[in-house]
Amino acid sequence: MLRIITTYLILDTYKMDIALFGFGCVGQGLYDALGQSHGFKAGIQKIGVKDRHKLRKIALDHFSFDSLEILGRSDIQAIVELVDNAEDALDIVTSAMQRGLHVVSANKKLLAEHFDVLFQLQQKHGVALLYEGACAGSIPIIRNLEEYYDTESLISVSGIINGSSNYILTRMDRDGLDYETALKQAQELGFAEIDPWLDVAGFDPKYKLVLLVVHAFGVIFKPDAVLNLGIQNVSAFDIEHAALKGQRIKLVAYAARNGNNIQAFVLPRFVGKESNLINIDNEYNAVEIEGAFSGKQLLVGKGAGSYPTGAAVLSDVAALSHQYRYEYKKLHQNIAANGHGLQDLDKDFTLKLYIRYQDDAQLQALDIKEVIEQYTSPRAKYLIAEVGFESLYNIRGKENKLFVALVG
Amino acid sequence: MLRIITTYLILDTYKMDIALFGFGCVGQGLYDALGQSHGFKAGIQKIGVKDRHKLRKIALDHFSFDSLEILGRSDIQAIVELVDNAEDALDIVTSAMQRGLHVVSANKKLLAEHFDVLFQLQQKHGVALLYEGACAGSIPIIRNLEEYYDTESLISVSGIINGSSNYILTRMDRDGLDYETALKQAQELGFAEIDPWLDVAGFDPKYKLVLLVVHAFGVIFKPDAVLNLGIQNVSAFDIEHAALKGQRIKLVAYAARNGNNIQAFVLPRFVGKESNLINIDNEYNAVEIEGAFSGKQLLVGKGAGSYPTGAAVLSDVAALSHQYRYEYKKLHQNIAANGHGLQDLDKDFTLKLYIRYQDDAQLQALDIKEVIEQYTSPRAKYLIAEVGFESLYNIRGKENKLFVALVG
Repeated sequence: MLRIITTYLILDTYKMDIALFGFGCVGQGLYDALGQSHGFKAGIQKIGVKDRHKLRKIALDHFSFDSLEILGRSDIQAIVELVDNAEDALDIVTSAMQRGLHVVSANKKLLAEHFDVLFQLQQKHGVALLYEGACAGSIPIIRNLEEYYDTESLISVSGIINGSSNYILTRMDRDGLDYETALKQAQELGFAEIDPWLDVAGFDPKYKLVLLVVHAFGVIFKPDAVLNLGIQNVSAFDIEHAALKGQRIKLVAYAARNGNNIQAFVLPRFVGKESNLINIDNEYNAVEIEGAFSGKQLLVGKGAGSYPTGAAVLSDVAALSHQYRYEYKKLHQNIAANGHGLQDLDKDFTLKLYIRYQDDAQLQALDIKEVIEQYTSPRAKYLIAEVGFESLYNIRGKENKLFVALVG
Repeated sequence: MLRIITTYLILDTYKMDIALFGFGCVGQGLYDALGQSHGFKAGIQKIGVKDRHKLRKIALDHFSFDSLEILGRSDIQAIVELVDNAEDALDIVTSAMQRGLHVVSANKKLLAEHFDVLFQLQQKHGVALLYEGACAGSIPIIRNLEEYYDTESLISVSGIINGSSNYILTRMDRDGLDYETALKQAQELGFAEIDPWLDVAGFDPKYKLVLLVVHAFGVIFKPDAVLNLGIQNVSAFDIEHAALKGQRIKLVAYAARNGNNIQAFVLPRFVGKESNLINIDNEYNAVEIEGAFSGKQLLVGKGAGSYPTGAAVLSDVAALSHQYRYEYKKLHQNIAANGHGLQDLDKDFTLKLYIRYQDDAQLQALDIKEVIEQYTSPRAKYLIAEVGFESLYNIRGKENKLFVALVG
């Protein structure tokens, strides 16, 4: 009896038929998860893909190569966008929203780069845009920030949110693999982006951090304004150096309120036994939320891979069927308070850093306030120093060979 | 502009004025959290308390000693029930729901003991009953099970969900405190129930487990049917024994699907370095959710204390203002499938247990299938043995002096 009422409400008010764009790792994970879900069914009316010649694991008549044809269908209420190319994705997502279709996306680069536009499109066309799968894989972090911490004044949000980098660091540390071999494994397992530079240089976690900041603090930052240094220059020496101190190196995305401003950056970090992050291994992600009243919360789960991310996307599709959408309460409050969603990014502070370098000239790019330790041997040279944060923007390029990590 | 629309929607469609019953540890935490919340305001029209002579930290005209008068007020849409006494709480909560008032409660005993009735009252009177604060303090576990894992076929839900027992075990382990001193500290810090037996004997985590099972598996169990053994007989010997193996003792609530049945129990457990639970200390709680697709997720946060629990209650009140209510999707599915919300509790399995005993006669209550290790010294005697699960129900009473813990 009760079941009948429930079914009636869901099916009658909002029957959920969707089109899927992209059928890679996450798309196939979603397809499988949807096929085996007991509670919720959505019909995939069509799958939009680009490559006509690629071998597919389901029958060809499920696919279309014409995205305009798909977006024009009258039998879908929503699309799921899981396309690799961010420009194609932007076209698909904006066209869909303009046509009144709801959108689920796992494309963090797209979302972070165009957040302001995509936010306005949601308001203008009265459609939902959900993106739990874009941030920390299976961890329901966006939903929790949006729904549960919306009344809580948050102090910080931080964590390990790039499964691929974390996999590489874990394999180097636990198994003594070299960087290149570990990266290759991460790619084979489907954890890495097509362009691994996005992962290892910290762009991918930065895009996710931009999304976290929107929901945690109600502020929109352009990704380019947020500092990211990655693990591309990490060496066995660095990992051994951490181990000698009982620590491990993790790539950590961090955002915290400082007065009315926000500090936000992605940096490698030495973490010790006292840290919740020290045992987060392989493709696992962990996000720590610190609230004024709720204290510290940690959410841990798989941050990459076909099924964990597919499950997150499925949960968004199911939420759409209940007419769920993000309310962006904190963002609306900030817009009302200062006319726009932007607060200043705080860059006026120093960080205590481990800096491994090859020759002194490399250090000139950095605003070193105080050298605390200095080490030189035939194998490596490093400093532990207090460094002006803003000078780290000078060493963001691919040509930089310094390895920099936060200490303590 | 956008802010105006939001405010209009919230205030005009559903202005939130509430009455609060109980002004103890959590009630005061809620009061403070509400006073300092930026995003959300609710008006506490009246606070119902029993004791006319107790010194209160806010003016006396906030209080009423007449619960009927409060429930009859026309200026409230919801009540928050934070009363110690479960019978008083049942009266207040049922009367409120019958009058069409929404209810937020943090009373796990009330909710678990009377779940079937309280579930039906929600349906019958079209009101919401929210209880995030009843389970694992600041961790939004009910909300996540309800909203995010509703489409996911879950394999297990388990964790440390009694802050007071965990505090005692931590202080005994880390600081060498004896059991009585550690318990007294937990009480002074406001982590323990008024009757500490509910905590240390595992009743409190069992009530919470009953609530988790409703949302994770859609099944209602009576608390009395679920086995709970606690830490009331733990000794320094047991903790040292664990430490020798690089392990720690934790009180763990566990529920898992086994075919169409559910295994559910609360038992002390030896946890090793491979476990996410080993470093969950003091009043922190941790809940692990294992999904068929999402994999293992861990949520960690403060499980007890005025502010963390107050923040959870506040989040529920804020959710009410958006007309949020639990949908119990999995429970409705089970009701439709088998006519009622009950599936069988699986008791037909064995567990590998550490059993410390004083004399052999105590062991007769247990269905010991196989003794794996046996140890006797002037200081202690213990067995490691495979034991028929159902026989553990024989040693639930206060007179039992065995200490039993799951191994591995």
